[in-house]
Amino acid sequence: MNTLLRTIIYLCLFAFEVAYAQEVINSPNGNLQLRFELSDKGEPVYQLSYKDKKVIIPSRLGLELHKSPALMEGFKQLSAETALVDTVWYPVWGQESQIRDNYRELMILLSQPKVKNRQMRLRFRLFDDGLGFRYEFPKQDILSHFVIREERSEFALTDDHRMYWIPGDYDTNEYPYTFCRISEMDSLQSEATIFIQDQWPIKNLSTQTPLMMKTDNGLYINIHEAALADYPAMCLDVDSRTKVLRSHLVPDAAGNKGYMQTECSTPWRTIVVSDKATDILASRLILNLNEPCAYEDVSWIKPIKYIGVWWEYFLGLSKWSYTTSNNVRLDTDYSKLKPHGMHGATTDNVKKYIDFAAEHGFDAVLVEGWNIGWERYSFIWKNDNFDYVTPYPDFDVQALRDYAASKGVKIMMHHETASSVANYERRLDKAFQFMVENGYNSVKTGYVGAIVPRGEHHDSQWMVGHYEYVVRKAAEYKIMVNSHEAVRPTGLCRTYPNWLAQESARGTEFESISENGNHPSHTCILPFTRLMGGPMDYTPGILETDISSFGKKKNRRVHTTLAKQLALYMVMYTPLQMAADIPENYMKYKDAFQFIKEVPVDWERSLYLEAEPGEYITVARKAKAKDAWFVGGITGENSRIAMISFDFLSPSQKYIATIYADGSDAHWDTNPKAYKITTRMVTSKTKIQQYLAPGGGFAMSLKPVKR
Amino acid sequence: MNTLLRTIIYLCLFAFEVAYAQEVINSPNGNLQLRFELSDKGEPVYQLSYKDKKVIIPSRLGLELHKSPALMEGFKQLSAETALVDTVWYPVWGQESQIRDNYRELMILLSQPKVKNRQMRLRFRLFDDGLGFRYEFPKQDILSHFVIREERSEFALTDDHRMYWIPGDYDTNEYPYTFCRISEMDSLQSEATIFIQDQWPIKNLSTQTPLMMKTDNGLYINIHEAALADYPAMCLDVDSRTKVLRSHLVPDAAGNKGYMQTECSTPWRTIVVSDKATDILASRLILNLNEPCAYEDVSWIKPIKYIGVWWEYFLGLSKWSYTTSNNVRLDTDYSKLKPHGMHGATTDNVKKYIDFAAEHGFDAVLVEGWNIGWERYSFIWKNDNFDYVTPYPDFDVQALRDYAASKGVKIMMHHETASSVANYERRLDKAFQFMVENGYNSVKTGYVGAIVPRGEHHDSQWMVGHYEYVVRKAAEYKIMVNSHEAVRPTGLCRTYPNWLAQESARGTEFESISENGNHPSHTCILPFTRLMGGPMDYTPGILETDISSFGKKKNRRVHTTLAKQLALYMVMYTPLQMAADIPENYMKYKDAFQFIKEVPVDWERSLYLEAEPGEYITVARKAKAKDAWFVGGITGENSRIAMISFDFLSPSQKYIATIYADGSDAHWDTNPKAYKITTRMVTSKTKIQQYLAPGGGFAMSLKPVKR
Repeated sequence: MNTLLRTIIYLCLFAFEVAYAQEVINSPNGNLQLRFELSDKGEPVYQLSYKDKKVIIPSRLGLELHKSPALMEGFKQLSAETALVDTVWYPVWGQESQIRDNYRELMILLSQPKVKNRQMRLRFRLFDDGLGFRYEFPKQDILSHFVIREERSEFALTDDHRMYWIPGDYDTNEYPYTFCRISEMDSLQSEATIFIQDQWPIKNLSTQTPLMMKTDNGLYINIHEAALADYPAMCLDVDSRTKVLRSHLVPDAAGNKGYMQTECSTPWRTIVVSDKATDILASRLILNLNEPCAYEDVSWIKPIKYIGVWWEYFLGLSKWSYTTSNNVRLDTDYSKLKPHGMHGATTDNVKKYIDFAAEHGFDAVLVEGWNIGWERYSFIWKNDNFDYVTPYPDFDVQALRDYAASKGVKIMMHHETASSVANYERRLDKAFQFMVENGYNSVKTGYVGAIVPRGEHHDSQWMVGHYEYVVRKAAEYKIMVNSHEAVRPTGLCRTYPNWLAQESARGTEFESISENGNHPSHTCILPFTRLMGGPMDYTPGILETDISSFGKKKNRRVHTTLAKQLALYMVMYTPLQMAADIPENYMKYKDAFQFIKEVPVDWERSLYLEAEPGEYITVARKAKAKDAWFVGGITGENSRIAMISFDFLSPSQKYIATIYADGSDAHWDTNPKAYKITTRMVTSKTKIQQYLAPGGGFAMSLKPVKR
Repeated sequence: MNTLLRTIIYLCLFAFEVAYAQEVINSPNGNLQLRFELSDKGEPVYQLSYKDKKVIIPSRLGLELHKSPALMEGFKQLSAETALVDTVWYPVWGQESQIRDNYRELMILLSQPKVKNRQMRLRFRLFDDGLGFRYEFPKQDILSHFVIREERSEFALTDDHRMYWIPGDYDTNEYPYTFCRISEMDSLQSEATIFIQDQWPIKNLSTQTPLMMKTDNGLYINIHEAALADYPAMCLDVDSRTKVLRSHLVPDAAGNKGYMQTECSTPWRTIVVSDKATDILASRLILNLNEPCAYEDVSWIKPIKYIGVWWEYFLGLSKWSYTTSNNVRLDTDYSKLKPHGMHGATTDNVKKYIDFAAEHGFDAVLVEGWNIGWERYSFIWKNDNFDYVTPYPDFDVQALRDYAASKGVKIMMHHETASSVANYERRLDKAFQFMVENGYNSVKTGYVGAIVPRGEHHDSQWMVGHYEYVVRKAAEYKIMVNSHEAVRPTGLCRTYPNWLAQESARGTEFESISENGNHPSHTCILPFTRLMGGPMDYTPGILETDISSFGKKKNRRVHTTLAKQLALYMVMYTPLQMAADIPENYMKYKDAFQFIKEVPVDWERSLYLEAEPGEYITVARKAKAKDAWFVGGITGENSRIAMISFDFLSPSQKYIATIYADGSDAHWDTNPKAYKITTRMVTSKTKIQQYLAPGGGFAMSLKPVKR
């Protein structure tokens, strides 16, 4: 029986037999409609529409279990409950100072009569901007512990949508995006799956989430998950013929995909949908589906703007390592080794960065390569690679602690684990204690390479648990976390606001690591994909776009204009924002640097004015607790005119706008550094047509004119 | 070219060409001879003889590497060095108060000209009672980190020896022993591989070490390893046709068998050999091949005789768990659950054990089932199963701490991990801190079930590292360790003497767990196999041999006579000795119990008087720092007469011997509890013919008569 026919029959039955009814709920404003039914085999089936356009056509839900009958069919419905929720909450930091959580909930209780009436709940939350649903497993005598072999959540699409996707992979999310039709994905899979160290691409056609889609009938659809905890991350297998996406969880060494104990639930599966692309970016559905803040005291959690001993490594000016030896151990006496003279994290160099941070108002200085072990640390599955407490001989922990304190600057700790996670967990308490003793209040963690415990993946259940463990343990020490190469975020920063940001996508570093770098469209898609789950430490602000000019890296460049680097501070929201370039380069462009110094990292309001996935984004934001607005916009390969209407400003207030824009002859490829800075007066009635060069952008700061 | 022919050719070459010479060394007393040569392919080849009888005929040595040419052939010999060592060392505890370490060493430095002159050393140590050899990997630019795919150490045997073996397995060593010829092993493999929960038997024919063998020409040969650290345990693949044994390391999830960084080495491969079975038991070769004690202060390490809230669980009298729920968590409030009333580790019950321990001179009381989580803890790969600090509501930690202290008795901590090792490591520091705060100075650890990190095995490199990590961390807290279900020991207790004992074999518990129990010959083979690596917590002393008499366990019995249970305290050496039966049973047999109360757990000298693998063992031991001797003997299925000549006693001293022996009509099967206790005077001239019933044994204490 095809699903359309079945739907019709059920709709007919509805008139006669309540037991076979579809459950139907509408979102608070009525734009979205969710229908739920059981198929004739007792399979849970849902469908979703937006303003009468189909978003998801009938799709099955269920799970395969290990050595136990599947939770996929043979269900009968015991009850259905609905509720309407409308509340407001106040994030510790964010794009807004308050967030409305408004949805209609449908909770379906199912049982399997042939499996001793084993029960499962499906909980749907229908917002005005999308749907969240999850599986819940009530505590019950016949189901206390179970193992998931696969989750079988379907997302049946209506047509051959445009997809903005990266390949499904168990270990990395640092792929460049591919834009194509579903029907083209098969032929592009191989090309999309570029080589990345220690990658583990799924063999069949699959994609990671957040997955962005656009339909020919004008819908924008985003599929992801929320509140991923104690469960593997979800990829989506793609059937390019039927246009059905199907959940594909990341397995462990035994091929298992979730060790569960009732009462428990899966993460939320999320479908954000609108006929306006800007609504996708403005959606807070994923945050709303996460649990409230787990901490009573959040006074120690503060957004951070920082610089770092970092980009100089990518320019080839210095190195993480201290010696040329490729054979060192944690008990190696480095003071007896000959330094190669290129070590970046020296006391003197860090002091210069501290001076620069203090002078220009940065909160912190990240220092990578301060601790012993960098000579040979990754891609060898080495267990005891770092101890997180022993500095290189030329890095004076105490002197720098005192120096930083005297300048009112924090040093940001760096814990590169090289994915030796077992080793990291053994040393975690001491590492955090060391931080507290030496004045560090934030840590950048790193997970380069293959995971130890061997057999686990970056995105498997155990590792998902590890990242959460680190963040919770960090909170015990009042430490904020910025995790790199960790599983993609799913809004857990609401629950753990000390998890300021993550990398979990292809960041600026690839402009140096790879010749192809990041395509000009890359940052025009990231807010629609990676950033749906939470802030990204993209590390923008590379004003000297010509990496090769430093002589150490050939054929390397940043694939944006200089002005677009400024605009990224507006478009790529994060409460942990780096000014990634080296101080010398900022001194070359002091006037442009002024925007980076001024731009806030915490906001009262955010308004997405224009957006198209992979093409352009324009956003306006109001600083938190200050009457100051900032506007930024970026474009992909094509130049464009951003249309900005300032009607969001206070009607009675005039503002001085400082506009950092591409020069009229700017071009990311041929003339990236042509920029101009102008000022003008704006009011709520002002409209500006702002030019963006190919691969370009603009940034504006608006300060109220004092009356 | 067959190896014999090759040997002959090389022997001929010897006369003409020194470069092609075999290296030959003899043991200090000349009984053993080792020959080393390179084959025509440049393969390292060794052979071993004992008093001109061949023990190992030419056998190759080498290793396969991951993504790198093998370290197996193409070698040339750069140098050969010999040394003679003769020293004495003093163990913290042991069968002797001093141990002689006397060997001739041969160190061969090899290089592979076709692999950039990559170097490897082979170090042989030839003792009068056997051979140890290992691979060493010098620090070198072209070999800093490497991964072993398999070790290829061969042990080519001369004939169809008698084997005393258990199947090769990555996760358990709790098999019963099979006695047969090599040629019979194939047909017995399936029968030998009985079902054990979470076992992982090797599919091809293989055996674990220590492997005991007996040759038709009168040699006893034992193969094992020494100083297993940061390397997987070794099984031996068996080619029953060629009679060649070949190393088979326990893999990780990726099939890798060792992550190595130069300078480093493998564990020692050991071959203990003699024409007297007693020499095998008296050999300290494995201890000698381990590193000296790693601790400066060992004053806190003391042998322990203990009882425990333990056997009552195996009798069905009480339970580890507190409630009938099979669905509890670490945050479950047990005080709100209904107890099932069978919980064993209650404050009152433990007090009774403490009273009993104090009254009868035991050092400690093991308490299992004191902490929450036992309701459903194993065989479900549960991660967060125990926290090691939260007692059940009816176990009062503070009250028992104070009560035990007032009685001069220690409580022995129990950390059942159920193999959730990642969870255990996260909680280890807090668990040990909890112990220190509550007066515990020893811990029994347990590793039931499949390992988390999933994909690791009980005997894989990472787990081998874990056990060592726990023992070293325990030492930081001055805690002694008794590990159960851990990798079989290899003499590391010399280096870490707080590692008092391990289980790592089929212990007394199987008399209750399985209907077959432990065969009467079982404890006659264990000293030749499992105990070669170190002390075993076998938990003897079950005087009430009829387990079924308690009504909860049908068809269960101990497969020994009562007197043999006493004899096990003599034969199964360990510094951590349990009196495993319940106090009530000891009160039924107070006179026999007297021996358990008196028998020391630390010795000045040990003399193995008679032995035959699987058949019988008779040993005499002198208590440490006291003029008191003890003698014990056991037999397997057959009755026998032990011939004891007391010529080891001081010639001028008379002793009162108390003899605990089988009754004349005793039989392990039909009349196990028939015993008699007699006393007599003995001197150095006395000879006693002591009867042992089928499955029986005897124990004697000799106290000097005061003059």
